[in-house]
Formats: sequence, C-alpha cells, structure tokens
Amino acid sequence: MVWYQNRIELGAMPRGFHLITADILRGIDDLHQLQVGLLHLFIQHTSASLAVNENADPDVRGDLERHFNVMVPENAPHYQHTLEGPDDMPAHIKSVLLGSSLTLPVSEGRLLLGTWQGIYLCEHRDHASGRTIIATLQGE
Amino acid sequence: MVWYQNRIELGAMPRGFHLITADILRGIDDLHQLQVGLLHLFIQHTSASLAVNENADPDVRGDLERHFNVMVPENAPHYQHTLEGPDDMPAHIKSVLLGSSLTLPVSEGRLLLGTWQGIYLCEHRDHASGRTIIATLQGE
Amino acid sequence: MVWYQNRIELGAMPRGFHLITADILRGIDDLHQLQVGLLHLFIQHTSASLAVNENADPDVRGDLERHFNVMVPENAPHYQHTLEGPDDMPAHIKSVLLGSSLTLPVSEGRLLLGTWQGIYLCEHRDHASGRTIIATLQGE
Repeated sequence: MVWYQNRIELGAMPRGFHLITADILRGIDDLHQLQVGLLHLFIQHTSASLAVNENADPDVRGDLERHFNVMVPENAPHYQHTLEGPDDMPAHIKSVLLGSSLTLPVSEGRLLLGTWQGIYLCEHRDHASGRTIIATLQGE
Repeated sequence: MVWYQNRIELGAMPRGFHLITADILRGIDDLHQLQVGLLHLFIQHTSASLAVNENADPDVRGDLERHFNVMVPENAPHYQHTLEGPDDMPAHIKSVLLGSSLTLPVSEGRLLLGTWQGIYLCEHRDHASGRTIIATLQGE
Repeated sequence: MVWYQNRIELGAMPRGFHLITADILRGIDDLHQLQVGLLHLFIQHTSASLAVNENADPDVRGDLERHFNVMVPENAPHYQHTLEGPDDMPAHIKSVLLGSSLTLPVSEGRLLLGTWQGIYLCEHRDHASGRTIIATLQGE
C-alpha cells in the first residue's frame, strides 16, 4: 500500500469549463506504479470546481458554461453577498453544485476513465488567478 | 489492507432514476470480508450518473426525473452541441450536476447506508444501451 | 496504514446551510496521527447533504439557501411525492444536487482545506431532528 500526495498548480484560466486531464496526469508521476488504487483530486477554492465529462466536442463545455449561467444568474435579487462582484456569489453556488473533489479509479498504472471522459476544471470567476489542486493517490 | 476492483455491467434502462443497490451488492463479492473500508463506484459514461437517495416510494424517483427535466430542459436556445439529439446535451449537464462517482462507508461486512438510502443509476438518455460501473473496494 | 471510523451525531439545526468544520474536527480524534490520508464523511439521510464552501461571510450561506429554494421550489406542479409536506420532495432534490458525502485530503495531521473553505451541513427540512454522519479516516 502506497500513498502519494502533491500539489498541482494550474495557471489562470478564463471563466468556463476546461479540460485538464493532461495537466493532472503530468502532476502525478507515480500512477504507473499502481496495479489498483484511487486518485483523489481536491480543489482548494470556493469559486471553482472539478467535474468529469465529455473530452471531445468543445461545444459541450461551452453549453455547460451557458447553462450554468442560466441556472445560476448574476445579479439575482435574493443575493446579499455582492461586495466581491456580480460573478462571485454565482461562483460559490456553481461550486457546491459541481463539487470540490473527484475520486477516480486506477487500474494497471492508468486512470480507468471511460473512452469519452475527461477531467474538467470549472472556473466560475471572471478574473481568477491560478488554482491549486491537491492530488492524493493511494493503491498498491 | 485489501483492494478489490471489478466491472459491473448493467443492462439498458429507460431514461429516469433507478434503484440499483441490489445490483451493486451482487457485483461486489468481497464486502463481507471487511471490518472497515470504503466502496467507490464510478460510472464510465458522460450521460448517466450515480446518486444516493430514498429507497422506498418510487414517486421520489419520478419527481427527480421530472424536476431535472425542468432545470435542464431539452432544446434550450443556448445549446450548440445538438447533433446527437435533444436529450444529449441535457444528459451531459445532468451528469455533472449529479456526479459520476459515489464513495460509501463499509462497516462489519456491509455498506453503512442510512435506513432510507439506496444507490441510484440516473439514466439521462432516451435510448441508452448498458452502462459500466467500476467498483473499487478497499479496507481491512 | 490505519483506518478509523466513527459516528458523529449532530443536533437538530434549522433549515439552511451550516458551517460544521469544528464539529467534524471534534468528532475525529485521530487526525493528528496521520502524515497523509483521506477523510470521508457520509450523511445517512436523504433530505440533508454535505458540501464545502466559504467559511467566512454568513451571507454566502444565506444566499445558497435562497438560491436553492429558487432552483428547487416547494409545491411544484410536477411533484407527486407530497405526503410528507411541501419541504420534503425539494429536500430530496437538493440532497442529490449537493451530495451525501465528501472526501477531504489529510496532510501532516490536519485537513488540507483551502484558506476560505469550510465543511457545510445543508439541512433541507423545516423541522429535522439530529443528523448522523459516518466519518471514515484512512492514511499512514
């Protein structure tokens, strides 16, 4: 049984849904050593989130951004937390809807994602700086 | 410390929320050997998802399907990913809202679910074929 | 490799989003023994949920409650599961949107949360009694 934990620093990205599977794989050197295990990813922020979805057509990621903006609009009359800008409270709501962490199965040295699955960073702020993800890999 | 990992293949189900606790338990032989542990379930698809909710009244599952269809309608004017049918982009959105994986506590050889909790497969496509779930069980 | 599992009983809370980081830390004695690991939290109920978000301004938690009440209103005409009161079916829907469990990284004896992150209990019923959370801590 082994544990690896490290910090993956991602540069600033524009608001939207971004495919980061390659960035995550570059950030975890030890994946190939595991026959079976789990990779846990945790984003240390409250206005960005992680998700798994389609890794092919970028229109899916555009539609996700557009639809979340309809479900969680800016300037809703019931928002009281407004001092940090119109994109801030929607970012918190999107963050709890999508979630701050992912757990992914590992088999024979690789992530056991489906053919069409990729890892997303969901950036909900207009002008965020970089984001930090804690990767915890366990297995044997 | 032991690890078990296997693939659970579920047959095609109609669009909606389905209780699959029994299917999952049949798919993991080794649960009774663990005094303490965690079961991780991961669906290898981007248009179906996993959730935990009420295991009794089927109206709860019907209302979930009806309400997700209101929150994530077909044919919204902002969808650009439309080539795979009107149920496709809503399926991706529902998938990220509900999530692709579950982690459940294990104690004394059984899942430590609450009295009213069951495991759901949430099928978001109209005519899906079967779905694959990777079950990873760890503990001692 | 060590495993600890215990039951954390939280007293009744009013409907809304509540910061429970301190309650969780009080409930897991063994965190300081781990150099690296994961904490898994699982709520054994179908009308309350767990989330991670801002630990500072209470307006964020108020806005979350207000916004979830807009996305998931009471008395929607498509609800058929209505016998347990107008707050019941919305509670189930909010529960699957937010999720029943959290997995959090552990490093050098403490939770590796971001500066602004806290753990929320999201109580979706008007008159709930206490809630039970199963905490499973693993690591080395």
